[in-house]
Amino acid sequence: MTSLRRSPEKIRLPLGFSFSAVAAGIKVSGRPDLALVESATGATAAALFTKNRVVAAPVQVGRASLLLTGGRVRAVIVNSGNANCATGRAGIQDCERVCREAGNLFGVPAAEVFPSSTGIIGVRLPSEKIRVKLPDLMAALSASKRGVLAFAHAIMTTDTRPKIASVRFQAASQAVTVLGIAKGAGMIHPQLATMLVYLFTDVDASPRELHPVLREACDDSLNCMSIDGDTSTNDTVLLLASGASGARVKDVRTRNKFSAALTAVCQSLAEQIVSDGEGVQHVIRLFVEQATSREEALLVARTIAHSLLVKTAWAGADPNWGRILAAVGRCGVPIDPSRVQIVIGSQKVCRNGVACAFNQQQAHRTLAQPVCDIRVQLRRGQHSVRFLTTDLTAEYVRINADYST
Amino acid sequence: MTSLRRSPEKIRLPLGFSFSAVAAGIKVSGRPDLALVESATGATAAALFTKNRVVAAPVQVGRASLLLTGGRVRAVIVNSGNANCATGRAGIQDCERVCREAGNLFGVPAAEVFPSSTGIIGVRLPSEKIRVKLPDLMAALSASKRGVLAFAHAIMTTDTRPKIASVRFQAASQAVTVLGIAKGAGMIHPQLATMLVYLFTDVDASPRELHPVLREACDDSLNCMSIDGDTSTNDTVLLLASGASGARVKDVRTRNKFSAALTAVCQSLAEQIVSDGEGVQHVIRLFVEQATSREEALLVARTIAHSLLVKTAWAGADPNWGRILAAVGRCGVPIDPSRVQIVIGSQKVCRNGVACAFNQQQAHRTLAQPVCDIRVQLRRGQHSVRFLTTDLTAEYVRINADYST
Repeated sequence: MTSLRRSPEKIRLPLGFSFSAVAAGIKVSGRPDLALVESATGATAAALFTKNRVVAAPVQVGRASLLLTGGRVRAVIVNSGNANCATGRAGIQDCERVCREAGNLFGVPAAEVFPSSTGIIGVRLPSEKIRVKLPDLMAALSASKRGVLAFAHAIMTTDTRPKIASVRFQAASQAVTVLGIAKGAGMIHPQLATMLVYLFTDVDASPRELHPVLREACDDSLNCMSIDGDTSTNDTVLLLASGASGARVKDVRTRNKFSAALTAVCQSLAEQIVSDGEGVQHVIRLFVEQATSREEALLVARTIAHSLLVKTAWAGADPNWGRILAAVGRCGVPIDPSRVQIVIGSQKVCRNGVACAFNQQQAHRTLAQPVCDIRVQLRRGQHSVRFLTTDLTAEYVRINADYST
Repeated sequence: MTSLRRSPEKIRLPLGFSFSAVAAGIKVSGRPDLALVESATGATAAALFTKNRVVAAPVQVGRASLLLTGGRVRAVIVNSGNANCATGRAGIQDCERVCREAGNLFGVPAAEVFPSSTGIIGVRLPSEKIRVKLPDLMAALSASKRGVLAFAHAIMTTDTRPKIASVRFQAASQAVTVLGIAKGAGMIHPQLATMLVYLFTDVDASPRELHPVLREACDDSLNCMSIDGDTSTNDTVLLLASGASGARVKDVRTRNKFSAALTAVCQSLAEQIVSDGEGVQHVIRLFVEQATSREEALLVARTIAHSLLVKTAWAGADPNWGRILAAVGRCGVPIDPSRVQIVIGSQKVCRNGVACAFNQQQAHRTLAQPVCDIRVQLRRGQHSVRFLTTDLTAEYVRINADYST
């Protein structure tokens, strides 16, 4: 396993993918808002989507396309500035039109073009603006770091920086690369958060082989984070495998290395997304330990991470363990409060559910760091979870309360 | 049913109760922080407590006492400034000591003295400060509006005003009065929210008769509100009946009138609590309609009311129905988004899950009012709920993030 690469200089490109972006005039700012990836030989695919019952048109179309093709993708087309959500039947048709046009240009069925949208809700997608830009977008395709950066920038909304991670590992004689590009869970002013994550690899794998590896990697990363507890209507994680490295996931050692690499990329993207959340001052790595199951640990972690009282205390770097204990108490897990321990940084602040002597100033300094670890130990079992979350600042409220019209 | 009286001038006193308050030096400010109610003949009681698994000492002691006495209460003693929570075995003993001392002075068992505490968590209760003030507190007892106001002020923490409601109704030849005094769900800087509600009536009823009426009244009022979604470790609702009016709840017409009066008092207290929430600019009356059950309607209402994206939009008076729709979509109820309607004030803003034409400026003005009605119609069934909630302002974050030491 090699080191994790985050900075744009260290982008490692998987074989078989090219990238491009243009400004199509969907964003009012005039910034790039239309991005394309092509896998010239076609890629195998696995995907995870939002669990929200309100689902944007591109999620509906993309999910249906993957079923239709059995997990085959030639191109991915993403627009920012418009979520194409709550747009009814017309929204579905707009999305299908874009996929059909792109499919025509590539000479493949519409279903091999995977669509994503992120931006304002309830407004028709300007599909004509997208259509006229498709030739430029195709002409700009490039298997280069410049292409990756252009793609990463064009899918941004309230993100303040692009989110890219890549890992390369050796599988027998072949080098295999995993590259991830994401946009964050910062809310699209004045509408909804959307997390879009695209993962590209040159490993050789069937859609059926990809799916469990993707699920596993996300469970330990993108599914273990929360900024504000809201779930977008457009959330999508798409994994594409070109097979161009020649290394096959059928080989167990390759599979294990690939799984580790994919998890590392997803964890890096999760950290990048959380630390770029709206108004975030502090990232909290919350470890819930000694639960009877992973689900129980997750429930406790989510309740703590969504408590306004806890999140506002973190904003003030206040080592207020009483709020954490109270959140644990109301989460629905039959915990015994007199067994709970809470550790901030390296200091135990609550032992057996009761205050213990600790250095308040040191705890305050620990919480004032950009990243802080908090451990909650339930003494019920053997399971634990690592959960990424953030404080809640007045700046978050300002960003999301600002009236738009 | 007579009119609801909220302003301090209109306090109606039930027969058989006297009230007092003193400053015992528990609050750093030196304000009144110790309050007493006595029912000289003893009252029957019913109570509801927090569902949090982390439970303060007075809640544990009070619950056990009601079981022990079969629902008999001579006096209620409440301190603000210290929650006596997460204080372990010593906290229980501190609480028991206060009840024993007060019981000795009244000549009744300790179990007939019902305790409450609200304030900072994890700090020992200064029970000696309370003990030495008991004689003064008893000497000050008064069956007067002045006594009620003194009690209502002494239990306040971050509340900006006392919360009092009273109703009088005629049961055959007797006048029956219901009086409610509450402290709010504003967080006790820098610790937890606590809601304490005391309900006094001179109706004649057994504890067994009181309990279902109390449960019903709370279900439609105090259980249908939320400021920040956190549940305190000390929440208590206590109903005491002196029987001094002579009107008996055994009589069905009296029971129905009593139930209506108690519900009206609880609804008034709920509105007072919500509108005095920390940093609250707008109170939202959220009507979730056409659900398959009341529980389903409540789940939808709670998910909307706890969504940071929704609450911050309300802070900006932003008629952002997309955020409401997305919250409905993730609440776990299998709604069909294409059937959902959303109404802000008198304007429909979302029809069949899709934007409909509406006057944005008018919707903005509606939401900018101190109180605004929002209706979410699911078109699944016949059940509905009225839920009181609030916006989330930067002021809330400021209050709760401010570091204390």
